[in-house]
Amino acid sequence: MVRKVCVVVTARPSYSRIKTALRALKNHPKVELQLVVAASAIIERYGNVAEIMEGDGFTIAARAHSLLEGDTLIGTAKSTGIGMSELASVFERLRPDIVVTVADRYETLATAAAAAYCNIPLAHIQGGEITGSIDEKVRHAVTKLADLHFVCTERAREYVIRMGEHPERVFKTGCPSIDIAREVLESPRPDFNPLDHYGGVGPRLDLSQGYLVVLQHPVTTEIDDAKDQITATVEAIKQLALPTIWFWPNVDAGSDVLSKMLRTEREHGTLDHVHFFRNMTPEDFLYTLLRAKCLVGNSSVALRESAYLGVPALNIGNRQRFRERGRNVIDAPYDKDAIVAAVATCVANGHHGRDDIYGDGTAGMKIAELLSSVPTSIDKHLSYVDGSPGV
Amino acid sequence: MVRKVCVVVTARPSYSRIKTALRALKNHPKVELQLVVAASAIIERYGNVAEIMEGDGFTIAARAHSLLEGDTLIGTAKSTGIGMSELASVFERLRPDIVVTVADRYETLATAAAAAYCNIPLAHIQGGEITGSIDEKVRHAVTKLADLHFVCTERAREYVIRMGEHPERVFKTGCPSIDIAREVLESPRPDFNPLDHYGGVGPRLDLSQGYLVVLQHPVTTEIDDAKDQITATVEAIKQLALPTIWFWPNVDAGSDVLSKMLRTEREHGTLDHVHFFRNMTPEDFLYTLLRAKCLVGNSSVALRESAYLGVPALNIGNRQRFRERGRNVIDAPYDKDAIVAAVATCVANGHHGRDDIYGDGTAGMKIAELLSSVPTSIDKHLSYVDGSPGV
Amino acid sequence: MVRKVCVVVTARPSYSRIKTALRALKNHPKVELQLVVAASAIIERYGNVAEIMEGDGFTIAARAHSLLEGDTLIGTAKSTGIGMSELASVFERLRPDIVVTVADRYETLATAAAAAYCNIPLAHIQGGEITGSIDEKVRHAVTKLADLHFVCTERAREYVIRMGEHPERVFKTGCPSIDIAREVLESPRPDFNPLDHYGGVGPRLDLSQGYLVVLQHPVTTEIDDAKDQITATVEAIKQLALPTIWFWPNVDAGSDVLSKMLRTEREHGTLDHVHFFRNMTPEDFLYTLLRAKCLVGNSSVALRESAYLGVPALNIGNRQRFRERGRNVIDAPYDKDAIVAAVATCVANGHHGRDDIYGDGTAGMKIAELLSSVPTSIDKHLSYVDGSPGV
Amino acid sequence: MVRKVCVVVTARPSYSRIKTALRALKNHPKVELQLVVAASAIIERYGNVAEIMEGDGFTIAARAHSLLEGDTLIGTAKSTGIGMSELASVFERLRPDIVVTVADRYETLATAAAAAYCNIPLAHIQGGEITGSIDEKVRHAVTKLADLHFVCTERAREYVIRMGEHPERVFKTGCPSIDIAREVLESPRPDFNPLDHYGGVGPRLDLSQGYLVVLQHPVTTEIDDAKDQITATVEAIKQLALPTIWFWPNVDAGSDVLSKMLRTEREHGTLDHVHFFRNMTPEDFLYTLLRAKCLVGNSSVALRESAYLGVPALNIGNRQRFRERGRNVIDAPYDKDAIVAAVATCVANGHHGRDDIYGDGTAGMKIAELLSSVPTSIDKHLSYVDGSPGV
Repeated sequence: MVRKVCVVVTARPSYSRIKTALRALKNHPKVELQLVVAASAIIERYGNVAEIMEGDGFTIAARAHSLLEGDTLIGTAKSTGIGMSELASVFERLRPDIVVTVADRYETLATAAAAAYCNIPLAHIQGGEITGSIDEKVRHAVTKLADLHFVCTERAREYVIRMGEHPERVFKTGCPSIDIAREVLESPRPDFNPLDHYGGVGPRLDLSQGYLVVLQHPVTTEIDDAKDQITATVEAIKQLALPTIWFWPNVDAGSDVLSKMLRTEREHGTLDHVHFFRNMTPEDFLYTLLRAKCLVGNSSVALRESAYLGVPALNIGNRQRFRERGRNVIDAPYDKDAIVAAVATCVANGHHGRDDIYGDGTAGMKIAELLSSVPTSIDKHLSYVDGSPGV
Repeated sequence: MVRKVCVVVTARPSYSRIKTALRALKNHPKVELQLVVAASAIIERYGNVAEIMEGDGFTIAARAHSLLEGDTLIGTAKSTGIGMSELASVFERLRPDIVVTVADRYETLATAAAAAYCNIPLAHIQGGEITGSIDEKVRHAVTKLADLHFVCTERAREYVIRMGEHPERVFKTGCPSIDIAREVLESPRPDFNPLDHYGGVGPRLDLSQGYLVVLQHPVTTEIDDAKDQITATVEAIKQLALPTIWFWPNVDAGSDVLSKMLRTEREHGTLDHVHFFRNMTPEDFLYTLLRAKCLVGNSSVALRESAYLGVPALNIGNRQRFRERGRNVIDAPYDKDAIVAAVATCVANGHHGRDDIYGDGTAGMKIAELLSSVPTSIDKHLSYVDGSPGV
Repeated sequence: MVRKVCVVVTARPSYSRIKTALRALKNHPKVELQLVVAASAIIERYGNVAEIMEGDGFTIAARAHSLLEGDTLIGTAKSTGIGMSELASVFERLRPDIVVTVADRYETLATAAAAAYCNIPLAHIQGGEITGSIDEKVRHAVTKLADLHFVCTERAREYVIRMGEHPERVFKTGCPSIDIAREVLESPRPDFNPLDHYGGVGPRLDLSQGYLVVLQHPVTTEIDDAKDQITATVEAIKQLALPTIWFWPNVDAGSDVLSKMLRTEREHGTLDHVHFFRNMTPEDFLYTLLRAKCLVGNSSVALRESAYLGVPALNIGNRQRFRERGRNVIDAPYDKDAIVAAVATCVANGHHGRDDIYGDGTAGMKIAELLSSVPTSIDKHLSYVDGSPGV
Repeated sequence: MVRKVCVVVTARPSYSRIKTALRALKNHPKVELQLVVAASAIIERYGNVAEIMEGDGFTIAARAHSLLEGDTLIGTAKSTGIGMSELASVFERLRPDIVVTVADRYETLATAAAAAYCNIPLAHIQGGEITGSIDEKVRHAVTKLADLHFVCTERAREYVIRMGEHPERVFKTGCPSIDIAREVLESPRPDFNPLDHYGGVGPRLDLSQGYLVVLQHPVTTEIDDAKDQITATVEAIKQLALPTIWFWPNVDAGSDVLSKMLRTEREHGTLDHVHFFRNMTPEDFLYTLLRAKCLVGNSSVALRESAYLGVPALNIGNRQRFRERGRNVIDAPYDKDAIVAAVATCVANGHHGRDDIYGDGTAGMKIAELLSSVPTSIDKHLSYVDGSPGV
């Protein structure tokens, strides 16, 4: 009996978080993988990760066009509503035995709710973490809609269970993104230079003496501060004057502000030591990160892959506060001087040893195995009450 | 400073669960009430509760047309997606300071998510209870999207807090539906006969020697059993042959099956001792319930208002299992003989004393007062982590 | 080279208008038929024509859930918008070489626009007729979106060409509904009694001495008069006191008013000589019609199938004014006395000879043959200008 | 009795086509103007024309978020469907006496259909013209949905009437965009330099010796050729090496391809004689155009405003074929050499005299006056039939 496992990918960064699980599912004899792409995952200007996935040998079973133009809060709500409606049609057609949703981006609530409402068991990857912003609400709401939980850390497992999920349904697998970090460490490519493989925009930099990598997303619950937040980072990078590789932000309420500022600065020639990329394969991204002197921004990559790779990371602002982190992370507020100083500290400290707080590099295999075999059910109750038949 | 409090009502039964709070909000000097109706609340064949609300003196600030035809699971998902998109537009226009969502019907996730994504503080009424079905998932997902919680029972407060909500934001107010039950007890109308006030369909019954009230909803996670479930109740009512007042079910996946069977039985003359109503004011519903020998079905009214009124209630099936209940409730499976026997027991036991497990009749005032004054925030984290700034 | 021909059916009456073409397409060696159902075609309480089609041996390639609850004008607009979005996804998936849309119901604009916007050649069946109401606007708007036209009458062909369509693309095929009428005439079933085959509601009537058939739809551009209009017919039928077979109206803005009134009258026992049906196969409908003394209402069946069958028809109101008609049709306003008198005249006149104004019974074959072979293009201009490359 | 006139603007170029009518409506004593913006009109990266309108003193009555991300054909269909649903809600709330839709962009079908389905009289501006592409289908479909027609040319009036519209409802007013051209001619600003007023991107050009203006849109029905088409123009502009002002294309299926190519060329420094603008006020756009040596591209501005201003225009490809044009227009195919040669001819010919083929500069006043006073009706039939009560 082959199980139809439907994984919904809605954005570029989610692919890194699930890729090795997809690979293991594709090759699993008891699984038929149904890969669905939606939202920004099929949009050219957000890196069209669907194309990258096809390049990696995956077949797309369905596409859901759901992303509204405009970086507004109302747009995130409407896009999620549209996505929920579109994905319900997709599930009606594909009739999966289980649906998998990844992490906590706003539009993933569409995947989770559509599956739950269609009485399809839902598995959630990366529950139980604590951040801030709308992601926090979405992540835990998805946990309450989900029937199976594949978490990254011990603390995350504890928290998901404390929220009332039955322990038998909460599995610590680690994060599939760490699997890629492990592959990168195990297959070093000392000569890898991203400028040789991706166009991007900006000057041809000399990366041989080290460089910074910047990855900063708008914080949707602090949207009025979006401009000030990105300004602090831009000014710091200008002052640091180190060769810098900057990745365009995800699509989110607020991302147009960032894009606009970066374009304006480029027009004025103030970022001539910066090269911009929109997208890479997850592997190439990590090869790029691996040799960075420091990762700067507010992405969870600072806490996850960077910890495993030992890359020093400067985490700016509140977006990742309360998330578990290793020794490689230093914090700074959205303030130019603080950022400059903290980057200097990071660079001075140099690289760290491997920290497998978010996984040991076997998450994909574990998740695929569990998805192929664990009993599923949509019957669920808070575990607090006596006799609750959780499993 | 007047606060704009936006309450979204999406279905007939939700009105009873919020009516006294609406009244208190409307009269509160520090509150501007924005009443929004959506989904089945504006549909004629589901009782058009919007019209009843206007008859009660409330002004509708906006209407969201979101309910798809057809009693299918995919329809519940799509309607919720459409509702989310529609309500986001409503919130953009009304710019409320706080949004209030009631209970746990599937489409209320649209209200909760639209508010959360638009960075509007969200208050949830009736969190922390345990039932079954999709309501269970929706209820707790809404809790994780909400910033304020107004719960009905002590246990519900404990459970919401255990799920990681900060205690300072969880208030036990009781259920506003109990406020109406209190009014009904305090202003008895011994001569009230629903047949004098509402048309409905079916024969003119003699209610003077007592009667049954039936209120049974389809269970959306057991949709394949919908026909068998309603058949058991219909057959039991036929055998009991007591004067019976039957309320049409809510709109839900499965409700067409119920409606169809009831129509067929009526055609065949087998329900000539049954009068059907589609809708009543919450008060008249309770006046009708108050003098019933027994409430039969799977509605939470059996556990809530009936407990306060002391009306014996036969609860059928799993829909309310794990919910707190008082002495007035007896359980039976979806089985004709079991139902007949249990109704006999209920009738024999007679009415009970008042049980204020779900509230003491002051919930509406408490909720309005809190909504007018409690500090609001959209910044929220699981309370488990040290230093989490919950409040 | 096999052509993928995608036919979209959105309502019960549209099936009769296309059924023989579907059959011919299904059997055509150069055609792959893609049958899509949408809107009320998949809704139980509107006769679920999708189920009937499957019973007739057709395979459904896709379902589009698009019909909003509530019989409101805003609902027709929203349902059409939803349908347009849903059908675009369907077309993206099925990649048809040509899309076929039938007649002029409001939601068919969704089919037409979705196909046109996706650069898929569009064929329209039943253009060039004149009625009134929103159908009139929709029908001609669809003509302007369509690339091929299969019309029923000579006058319709002339009108479509006068609207600026190139004559080479406008084909008079007749209406497929007449094909069924021809089959019915050629295979008489003198013993056919609809009461033996369909449940419906109402008493078992004696049809042996003749009967009336009623088919009346709400007029969406006269929605405020909907109640008065149906009242006139109901009162006339009550006074005529002949055995009557009444078909529930289509889903449209206003249809709930009709349904409600019919239900109320039934409760009061004033329609005890009327049996109500929701749906039949197109063939059985015509067998039922064939032996009627008179068809009463405002359906185009009065002008089309009834003309071919020679059944006297009373056409009420403006819905069909300006449509071509044969000798079998008499007009009356929405007035009880006028309707009673006109029905008497119809009955007295008796049946007429065959009139093939709307087709000679070969439309389905012709349409299928043309769809399989005619050159297609999406390049189109008003034919009025010199040198316009219409074909 | 004041009439509520609701004008829906969905894109940057539509504003120029309606601005003077809006001004006249705003000031008309018998009119209450309800200005609605939708689709790309509220999107930052498409020039956010809503903001410009507010800057011009207009109040926005409602915003409809309807534009999906991604420059795909399916996206145009879905955005139009979403817009139809959103605008129906807007019309329900604003309850206009008449709705006005402008020109023929794909998303305007949403305005037209939503109004028609809600039984609101619809006025269409710029019907009866002939172009190509999906615009052609949309334009005439909107004509068939509309009750009033305000056309630009004598030929357009003739064509609208030939399509079956009643002559009493078709008014030749000229195009409001010509009103602005007239104002620009009457208030010359010889010192106007767009580089002083708008940022844009690209070098500071010396415009004193004349310059080219480029305005080229993707052709949605030739989407596979989009890249070749823009390449021809880019290569021609590179070879011509004249100072050039280039306006980013409208949002349409295909526009991302154009944007991407332009960005790439800029990165490679091959367009250093080109300055790019996203948006201007309609007036400033015409002041910029007025002093150009030649307008290059496929915009209808070449045929309309340029004719009135006497600016030589090179029209590339099929997008405007069959549209009426004056002496100022020369045609060329999508071919580099042909474009280079034709531009040279245009420049050599120099400016022409005023040609008021598309209006005499009084369209806005005429339209406002008609909208305030002309009898409205939603009852409409093809004029071909005898006795058709068109007016």
